[in-house]
Amino acid sequence: MANPKEYPEEIWGIEDPRITYVPELEQYAVAYTSFSRGGPGVSLALTKDFKSFERYGVIMSPEDKDAALLPRRINGRWALIHRPMTALGAHMWISYSPDLRHWGSHKIILEARRGGWWDANKIGLCSPPIETAKGWLMIYHGVRQTASGSIYRLGLALFDLEHPDVCLQRGDSWMFGPEATYELSGDVEGVVFPCGQTIGADGDTIHLYYGAADTSVALATGSIRSLLSWLDSNSSKGDATRL
Amino acid sequence: MANPKEYPEEIWGIEDPRITYVPELEQYAVAYTSFSRGGPGVSLALTKDFKSFERYGVIMSPEDKDAALLPRRINGRWALIHRPMTALGAHMWISYSPDLRHWGSHKIILEARRGGWWDANKIGLCSPPIETAKGWLMIYHGVRQTASGSIYRLGLALFDLEHPDVCLQRGDSWMFGPEATYELSGDVEGVVFPCGQTIGADGDTIHLYYGAADTSVALATGSIRSLLSWLDSNSSKGDATRL
Repeated sequence: MANPKEYPEEIWGIEDPRITYVPELEQYAVAYTSFSRGGPGVSLALTKDFKSFERYGVIMSPEDKDAALLPRRINGRWALIHRPMTALGAHMWISYSPDLRHWGSHKIILEARRGGWWDANKIGLCSPPIETAKGWLMIYHGVRQTASGSIYRLGLALFDLEHPDVCLQRGDSWMFGPEATYELSGDVEGVVFPCGQTIGADGDTIHLYYGAADTSVALATGSIRSLLSWLDSNSSKGDATRL
Repeated sequence: MANPKEYPEEIWGIEDPRITYVPELEQYAVAYTSFSRGGPGVSLALTKDFKSFERYGVIMSPEDKDAALLPRRINGRWALIHRPMTALGAHMWISYSPDLRHWGSHKIILEARRGGWWDANKIGLCSPPIETAKGWLMIYHGVRQTASGSIYRLGLALFDLEHPDVCLQRGDSWMFGPEATYELSGDVEGVVFPCGQTIGADGDTIHLYYGAADTSVALATGSIRSLLSWLDSNSSKGDATRL
């Protein structure tokens, strides 16, 4: 843990890093939740080797979480997905930066739905967005409050490659949720929560690493092609979610 | 009101502008609360004449309010005071920008106190910081929750001129609070809430314009010299609030 005098934003620790390899910089960008006295915000650190890190400080002031950097510039600027949390709800936003240190042009890109949806009230990005020929594929979590607690499940949304603030498709239903015993019971019941993935050499196989019930780390494998075709047959028009 | 399709961050309106004249740009910078579907954030607009405005968009994503720009660069970067609101409390932060559009290096500069203080749990900048020979003088509001509602009162803090994240002095007690009938009763009882001031030609007289009980606009006059000497005799060491 960092020296809390030097990095007061980390005084209560750090959580949920999302790692993006950035070819232009030949470095990994780690977007993580830094827990300050003012609540959880988003901080960014760069590393070549995961031994030494260059800290860029707080890039989104609290309350904000669930951030990941896109691996390349969009129209000359870096883009970050993140999830500010307010009394009005927790939606997914995008922000842009010329230098990774200063961020602006904040925009909502995907709203938590309302009412009885599996992703009502609170959503957030999971693992970093995946660049596909059809668009940025984003795996996100949705939280449903029930009488006995909350249930965290995963859904999919697809965003335009050159306009990542434009949602092209959004799955109506969730596509992965807690079912196994180790997902249903543990420190926090009914949670699957991925922060990272690897893609196989075939460019299609996805290995999704996720926290299960805040107790274990588990691995699910799948196919990006299958996720995209699942979206084709399970999505409403994205236009409705463009703001 | 702006077109909500073009400026979705203003869909529920705008509030509480703080206006700073920026000599370098020969323009006024208006930092205002823009109420988006995701809650209230901070947006910035520049104007020469208060007839046409150039919008810089959302510069602090929700939930954030009570922002004002310092009138000049600090070590080459612009500085903004603002107040993110989280479940953990509402403290004052500073952020820096090379271009007024992208912001980073977010830091807490003044915390809401705890317990029975007049400024426990929730504080925020009022009118824009005033540059004095001794430092940046900031008038801030503190909120005390009582059984019958909340009471908004004003306090003072002084920050280092070239390091505005360093608090030099903070008043122990509040220095201005609701007393007159029009401050004690109205749409929201017990509120004094200034967003702007003018300084007289003598460089000392302050005209503080404030909302009274969310019903009227009222004017209080005072002396900057007197405010600074009040701070001298009513402040704890600022070091305690440096993070």
